[in-house]
Amino acid sequence: MAYRVGVVGAAGYAGIELVRLLLGHPQFKLVAITSNADAGQKLADVYPAFAGVSDLEFTTHDNPLLTACDAVFLAVPHTAALAAAPGLLKAGVSVFDLSADFRLSDPAVYEAWYNTQHTSPELLKTRAFGLPELFAADLARAAASRAAGEAVLVACAGCYPTATSLGAYPAIQAGWMAEGSSVVVDAISGVTGAGKSANARTHYCSADENVEAYGVCKHRHTPEIEQILGLEDRVVFTPHLAPLKRGLLSTVNIPLAPEVADTLTTEDAVARYRAFYEGSPFVRVLDAGQFPKTSSVAGSNACQIGLAVNGRARMLVITSAIDNLCKGAAGQAIQCANIVLGLDETCGLPLCALPV
Amino acid sequence: MAYRVGVVGAAGYAGIELVRLLLGHPQFKLVAITSNADAGQKLADVYPAFAGVSDLEFTTHDNPLLTACDAVFLAVPHTAALAAAPGLLKAGVSVFDLSADFRLSDPAVYEAWYNTQHTSPELLKTRAFGLPELFAADLARAAASRAAGEAVLVACAGCYPTATSLGAYPAIQAGWMAEGSSVVVDAISGVTGAGKSANARTHYCSADENVEAYGVCKHRHTPEIEQILGLEDRVVFTPHLAPLKRGLLSTVNIPLAPEVADTLTTEDAVARYRAFYEGSPFVRVLDAGQFPKTSSVAGSNACQIGLAVNGRARMLVITSAIDNLCKGAAGQAIQCANIVLGLDETCGLPLCALPV
Amino acid sequence: MAYRVGVVGAAGYAGIELVRLLLGHPQFKLVAITSNADAGQKLADVYPAFAGVSDLEFTTHDNPLLTACDAVFLAVPHTAALAAAPGLLKAGVSVFDLSADFRLSDPAVYEAWYNTQHTSPELLKTRAFGLPELFAADLARAAASRAAGEAVLVACAGCYPTATSLGAYPAIQAGWMAEGSSVVVDAISGVTGAGKSANARTHYCSADENVEAYGVCKHRHTPEIEQILGLEDRVVFTPHLAPLKRGLLSTVNIPLAPEVADTLTTEDAVARYRAFYEGSPFVRVLDAGQFPKTSSVAGSNACQIGLAVNGRARMLVITSAIDNLCKGAAGQAIQCANIVLGLDETCGLPLCALPV
Amino acid sequence: MAYRVGVVGAAGYAGIELVRLLLGHPQFKLVAITSNADAGQKLADVYPAFAGVSDLEFTTHDNPLLTACDAVFLAVPHTAALAAAPGLLKAGVSVFDLSADFRLSDPAVYEAWYNTQHTSPELLKTRAFGLPELFAADLARAAASRAAGEAVLVACAGCYPTATSLGAYPAIQAGWMAEGSSVVVDAISGVTGAGKSANARTHYCSADENVEAYGVCKHRHTPEIEQILGLEDRVVFTPHLAPLKRGLLSTVNIPLAPEVADTLTTEDAVARYRAFYEGSPFVRVLDAGQFPKTSSVAGSNACQIGLAVNGRARMLVITSAIDNLCKGAAGQAIQCANIVLGLDETCGLPLCALPV
Repeated sequence: MAYRVGVVGAAGYAGIELVRLLLGHPQFKLVAITSNADAGQKLADVYPAFAGVSDLEFTTHDNPLLTACDAVFLAVPHTAALAAAPGLLKAGVSVFDLSADFRLSDPAVYEAWYNTQHTSPELLKTRAFGLPELFAADLARAAASRAAGEAVLVACAGCYPTATSLGAYPAIQAGWMAEGSSVVVDAISGVTGAGKSANARTHYCSADENVEAYGVCKHRHTPEIEQILGLEDRVVFTPHLAPLKRGLLSTVNIPLAPEVADTLTTEDAVARYRAFYEGSPFVRVLDAGQFPKTSSVAGSNACQIGLAVNGRARMLVITSAIDNLCKGAAGQAIQCANIVLGLDETCGLPLCALPV
Repeated sequence: MAYRVGVVGAAGYAGIELVRLLLGHPQFKLVAITSNADAGQKLADVYPAFAGVSDLEFTTHDNPLLTACDAVFLAVPHTAALAAAPGLLKAGVSVFDLSADFRLSDPAVYEAWYNTQHTSPELLKTRAFGLPELFAADLARAAASRAAGEAVLVACAGCYPTATSLGAYPAIQAGWMAEGSSVVVDAISGVTGAGKSANARTHYCSADENVEAYGVCKHRHTPEIEQILGLEDRVVFTPHLAPLKRGLLSTVNIPLAPEVADTLTTEDAVARYRAFYEGSPFVRVLDAGQFPKTSSVAGSNACQIGLAVNGRARMLVITSAIDNLCKGAAGQAIQCANIVLGLDETCGLPLCALPV
Repeated sequence: MAYRVGVVGAAGYAGIELVRLLLGHPQFKLVAITSNADAGQKLADVYPAFAGVSDLEFTTHDNPLLTACDAVFLAVPHTAALAAAPGLLKAGVSVFDLSADFRLSDPAVYEAWYNTQHTSPELLKTRAFGLPELFAADLARAAASRAAGEAVLVACAGCYPTATSLGAYPAIQAGWMAEGSSVVVDAISGVTGAGKSANARTHYCSADENVEAYGVCKHRHTPEIEQILGLEDRVVFTPHLAPLKRGLLSTVNIPLAPEVADTLTTEDAVARYRAFYEGSPFVRVLDAGQFPKTSSVAGSNACQIGLAVNGRARMLVITSAIDNLCKGAAGQAIQCANIVLGLDETCGLPLCALPV
Repeated sequence: MAYRVGVVGAAGYAGIELVRLLLGHPQFKLVAITSNADAGQKLADVYPAFAGVSDLEFTTHDNPLLTACDAVFLAVPHTAALAAAPGLLKAGVSVFDLSADFRLSDPAVYEAWYNTQHTSPELLKTRAFGLPELFAADLARAAASRAAGEAVLVACAGCYPTATSLGAYPAIQAGWMAEGSSVVVDAISGVTGAGKSANARTHYCSADENVEAYGVCKHRHTPEIEQILGLEDRVVFTPHLAPLKRGLLSTVNIPLAPEVADTLTTEDAVARYRAFYEGSPFVRVLDAGQFPKTSSVAGSNACQIGLAVNGRARMLVITSAIDNLCKGAAGQAIQCANIVLGLDETCGLPLCALPV
């Protein structure tokens, strides 16, 4: 017995990754894919990888099939999800939002960083935060509501916050961080992270053979990371663009409290992290001395984490790798939907990247 | 009821692609992966994409589990398959060979192009040629033998011959080619085609930002293409290396007989090709005016084909795209095994590439 | 005593390569760079490689400094050069046109392939064709006219025609080609060849990890190659896009006359080509068995050529590598300007690529 | 009047970049290039970019022409420079060493990080440190000694220390850094930084479409950065590998003293940096809000720096871009040689990258 699902904003990169995963999902039936720009075109004409695989066509966002779905995924820019979610919820459709619109619990923070009014602040009180490994209780509550017949809203975490928080959270929860210090996060993303829009930055001849920082000290994922980690004004986040399609590596530097720095070994840290992630099928903590390659997770919903304790400089250095489109967007949303709809959280999600 | 399978030479690029596909195959149970160089190491330590996915370890080639398999895939260099196949067959194990050792039906041609003696010429008479879309009868015969309790040998086609022949065969069968003319094939492969060996050619700094031809007029896939197409001494084949990991594009130029050139339209050619490939789930012939991107098939077992009739110069130009490691190697071998073992030929094989 | 020069269309990829080369040219003083889209912006703000190197600013195309130049380079789309050249010539400025507007000697061919009227057919009679290694007499004539005080027009050859013709011409001139046969040219270009416009094809995530053919049987460089080689309706040209920035490799297949095929060795062919290019400082014919890498010429004005005689199939296979922006565009235009203005043809032009 | 120079270890990536630059240097005559592995081979056969450009051949390291040089560049692994430098100095040849052997002033630190004995500790007292923008006095002293007839030794700074220190030094000198705090440096290098050796890490199929950290908390450039900045045990340095050939971006996070954080603006910081680098032709400090692309400096000896003050988290974030082979190795060594030999420091060095 499959659930009927739809994707709004299906022609963007996160949207099309949802389509790929949902077409292969054994418990979901994808009935509607919308894109105002590509409405009327066949999926396979816009993305030729689907030639011979699916006859779906893009429709406009007002496709009536959406309101007959069990769940709808919103893969639209911020503000567009604010506009779309309330109606779907009212129609009894659970909403899994990949945009930033419902992530920040304080609407004032949203308004400050996104320069726009939050039109549904009441939804922020009940929405679940979609990062299953760290917010299991949130999603369990949503699953219970859904089982009781309610439509629920899940605000799926962003790509940088996902990799960064999976890397940083266990250490901070363990109380290892030096009081009053700040976490320095330098992260690197592939170009799919910049979206499907063709512009000077995404031109092949600009992105190829180049790395650069962008959004320095003002990237909108900063407050989201701070919220997840409980570190207001204490996250310094610098994203970088590198010449690859998929993949996101977050390098997290956590200053250690002196007494921790003097005793904690890398092996201790690995053990603690492994215990923390014991029930999490997608997270893999590597042996001491190993650090993840983004290519080891590309195309999959996995997150790989490497750790090193730097006693000299009293710092825990963590690198955390995900596929920005999968665990950082579409895969995570489906993982949340699996949980909320009572399925196994791995259902339909690739655990394994291409080996080469 | 799963079949037990093994991979000899599992740490190379074709071998590890077999491992990836076999681990996800619903009817095969992968019980042995061998690599003399990596014996004793965990799969996930050599290829970290498998972290948390499989606990398999590499063993040496003499793993006794192999002879207890239903089918073994040989992903070893030529001559090594010559050495390994007879023993496995004698032990009752069906063999799917990805090397060139059993592809050429005439051992003299093998010896001329590979500079080595063919030690099992008798096997060439009964082996099936593993290119299902063009040699269905061969594989049906092997399936019948196998059903009757015999171990069978399948010589899977090479990567360039697969893409090239799928592109060229229907036109030649249709009699469109000018008498006495030669086919010009210029093909481009990603660097996985050059194998896992680290050398001056496969160094990132040599392959990146570069295209070049190699093996000009002497590549060993030439006689294989000529054999499949029945064009002795009439194939000019030039392979090129381009900076991508997976993907192979073969551009095939077939001189048209004058009367054909004067009347055949591209639409006619597309229609003929579509009819030819009607029962072939992995081959997709694109609309007139469309030509395949290798990225549309990477990671999948698909082949996409584009066609153009050049009336001015009396030439049919065909471009044919595959993933060299999947349809060009591991995927095709599994497709052959599916057929021989009585499964649906698509079983366990990805039809769809990553959309981006 | 430097010549004053300007570049019209300086913000495109060929234009900015002209700017790079002209800023380093010891005999040219770059006084005007125009771009209607970027007028008013500093060179270094649009192309940050020039930070600290030049204070030039882009102006609109009507910059009056242009008519005071000795030479102006037109790096504009076709039809725009048709509009700009006559006025400059009238003002006594020699014009080096990188567009296709004055390349085809027969205006009817231009009109058929470019779907637009040729508004200055009279200029086609006197323009020099800008491919110095093959049209030395043309450029010598232009130099003489220029020395006599006339403004001259040079129609610089396109990127594919340059690589292809440098590769094919000596063989055809030698009479090696089989009568009535067609030349098959499969060429591969980096993404700068697709221009600066940001679109679905030039998006990093579309071009990366992909090769594809485009413009099959209808690319506009076809009649230009046929004109240079004197092979009307006998060139089959298929360009391909590969994931690199700069570099163009043309693989040329020339059917050999039977008597030639039976006797010509690759060494003979190399010797003939070396004799042909003896006085050409930018062309390098490689030893038999060697084939060029595009990375060996990227950033330079060099062309490297490799040859192989295929006796079995009676074919001469040639691969010819250039940098599409340099020898294929800006470098060649400066080489022509050097000749026309009486300088050494190598003046200010890089002979050597980055070694890695 | 040209100086005679040689390169020991000329076939590696830094060595061949020296060759490229020295062949084009107007005041240096390159008379010897050595490589024990490639001895007897022509330069152009090993690096085909030099075809037609130079007839030099590689010799073994014991080439007697070296001791007749004015200056020799050592581009050999650490310990090999320890072995080679004393003899050359004794022969009156000034030595510009690109290895790490003479960078660390304290031999005990060298021995701790490099696990080998320092056999010439006395040379550490007189060697100049080769990072001209920060150690001008050192190089002036060496120039004076050289003018007085002495052979001098210059220990050229490493690639990561160069980019990082050029980015960090002015802020630290200004006293902006919070007392007792540590600097976090996350840097990204292209694959040429991993050297010419073909191995699992440098294989195209491993490096492509991948980013990863390496040498976490133990990279040997850490003590060199600490020495330059005067921050013992207070630098946390994590290098990363990204899929490009040339380019190095260092992202430096400097905790600001509270009183500085409350008042310093990004514009202030830019102004201070511009004043600091006023006489430095290769360093360019970008406008507030701008951050460098590595592609803007690739192939050149330039360094571009971007700055942002993060008042919320009291951090100065700096990104600094160089070409690891040029300003990070060969170019910097030649810059040092120019200074020591009394030439303009920019002599023969490219100021400008390819614009695209």
